[in-house]
Amino acid sequence: MSTPEVAVAMDWGGTWTRTAVIDRRGKILWQSRQPNPQGGTKEEYLTNAEGLLATAIQQAGGAVAGIGAAVAGPVEPVTGTFYQPPNLMVLDGVSFKALWEEAFSVPVWVGNDANLAAFGEYYFGAGKESADKGRPVKTLFYVTVSTGVGGGLVDKGSVFLGANGLTSEIGHTLVDTTEAALTCQCGSKGCLEAMASGTGIERIARSRLAAGDFPNSALAALDADRVNSEAVFDAAEKKDPLAVSILDGAVSALAIGLTNVVHLFNPDMIVLGGGVTNGLVKLDLLTEIRRQMMGRIMSELHKDFQLTSSRLGDAVGLIGAAAMVWDQLGATG
Amino acid sequence: MSTPEVAVAMDWGGTWTRTAVIDRRGKILWQSRQPNPQGGTKEEYLTNAEGLLATAIQQAGGAVAGIGAAVAGPVEPVTGTFYQPPNLMVLDGVSFKALWEEAFSVPVWVGNDANLAAFGEYYFGAGKESADKGRPVKTLFYVTVSTGVGGGLVDKGSVFLGANGLTSEIGHTLVDTTEAALTCQCGSKGCLEAMASGTGIERIARSRLAAGDFPNSALAALDADRVNSEAVFDAAEKKDPLAVSILDGAVSALAIGLTNVVHLFNPDMIVLGGGVTNGLVKLDLLTEIRRQMMGRIMSELHKDFQLTSSRLGDAVGLIGAAAMVWDQLGATG
Repeated sequence: MSTPEVAVAMDWGGTWTRTAVIDRRGKILWQSRQPNPQGGTKEEYLTNAEGLLATAIQQAGGAVAGIGAAVAGPVEPVTGTFYQPPNLMVLDGVSFKALWEEAFSVPVWVGNDANLAAFGEYYFGAGKESADKGRPVKTLFYVTVSTGVGGGLVDKGSVFLGANGLTSEIGHTLVDTTEAALTCQCGSKGCLEAMASGTGIERIARSRLAAGDFPNSALAALDADRVNSEAVFDAAEKKDPLAVSILDGAVSALAIGLTNVVHLFNPDMIVLGGGVTNGLVKLDLLTEIRRQMMGRIMSELHKDFQLTSSRLGDAVGLIGAAAMVWDQLGATG
Repeated sequence: MSTPEVAVAMDWGGTWTRTAVIDRRGKILWQSRQPNPQGGTKEEYLTNAEGLLATAIQQAGGAVAGIGAAVAGPVEPVTGTFYQPPNLMVLDGVSFKALWEEAFSVPVWVGNDANLAAFGEYYFGAGKESADKGRPVKTLFYVTVSTGVGGGLVDKGSVFLGANGLTSEIGHTLVDTTEAALTCQCGSKGCLEAMASGTGIERIARSRLAAGDFPNSALAALDADRVNSEAVFDAAEKKDPLAVSILDGAVSALAIGLTNVVHLFNPDMIVLGGGVTNGLVKLDLLTEIRRQMMGRIMSELHKDFQLTSSRLGDAVGLIGAAAMVWDQLGATG
């Protein structure tokens, strides 16, 4: 029996749920994006998700090889159980795998969204592009710099899961040990996420405006509710000193966090994704991150890696979820 | 044909070379320790090492399953080539595997000493002890806190090697981002090794004595050349304020570095070894490291790990090298 040619993928984030039909080469044949139910119960969330998957299966128009789902939170590697997801707490303890295999009679795999994003870039994004150019990637670290900061590692074709599937949390590594270090949403101080995420950049901008340090900044002229990370990037493009100084801090924090990643994981490719990364690329700040890293890395051999931005953009979670299906079925590419 | 019952192990450090005959259960049947030739040429080093191995093979008194060697520096995973070892630079580019397989007609495997120490603790040390008590370890991070600070990771029975075998370099992760951060031997600033290694502790003690901050410290009464990490630990045991303050810094640096390791590798066991660890254990400072880590770790699930000290002591590299032989031959335990 031959494997069907399409997989159904879901990327269940804190705000949106995306679904897609994706072929064996990682090409999206159909996709949809829906907002999550607001303040819904567990049952409302699950009914909604099942409806979205049923629609995607219908759109596939034939047999489906499997369902792959990327979820915003930790997933227990063996049972596929969702654990204490900060943005979807009503779903704590749910095993989507068991639920959906019963509902749809196809194999289901579930993974953490940042881990699967790494998997997507490895098989169908920056990793594939490098392999096609004759430089196959052994160890790929993916960082999403977005509302939060997360990460995933693929080593020789497998996601690195550690003891409980909670690996690659670069957003909560320490990059500031000074007295002035910012408090992070996780409760600790000096985490990368507090300095480089979209919410971190917004918080820093608001607090520095409130302190009155930069009265002539273009950001000071905005209504308070319009001060966000996009506004900081726009102002930095026009050399606004406050905006430039905030992004200097984010760049320096990312360089420290990624240097630690290089010394611990020894990747030969680092891929940055997420909305904040788009802003960094536009201002050519990936070059500056790389420059600062090179000044800190301990050996020439550790410096032998590519640093690049995501090739898959917003679809990285969906494509990674499909890559997991093809990988599990032994049918990638 | 059955596999012979003993392996020959070598642990080639910066100062000493140890050799041993070790059985399938990790038990040392014979061992020897020799100083390295001082300022020798590459040929003198290699002749000396071959002589030590020949002696060990003779001591084995029969067929040898293989030779395992732990070396102080990076090893290329596929070819077994030794790369830019900071303490054994004359051996840069040498493949012991090729040399010794020809010389002794037995299979040879070579690995980085910290990686193999992790392997040794996993199969025959703290990891085995935990498994024997019904709690098998999935992901073990080993840290050597000694002259330098290094690390190794074993995940589901395999050493994590990354792209080029240069992983787990916790000693060169950043744990101090303040202006006052110390310069490390690697050229960077604020590395864990600069604050918590034996040489780091000695340098800090000497520099703070020179600054005259603690004129009444017991360390100030010592001859300058007797101020070393052992003296700091001895003084700290007697509550000497300078010594206590230096070790507070080392403990805090280790807690930050290991918290980053927990967030990136998600280990369920962390094992600390090396001479400085012996001092930390004596003063019950592993408990304090654990306490500080718990205050920083982002989730309850990440906190589910054991933190303990090495069960194998000075023999950890030798036993890890033998574990590699048994693992490669599929004959562990």
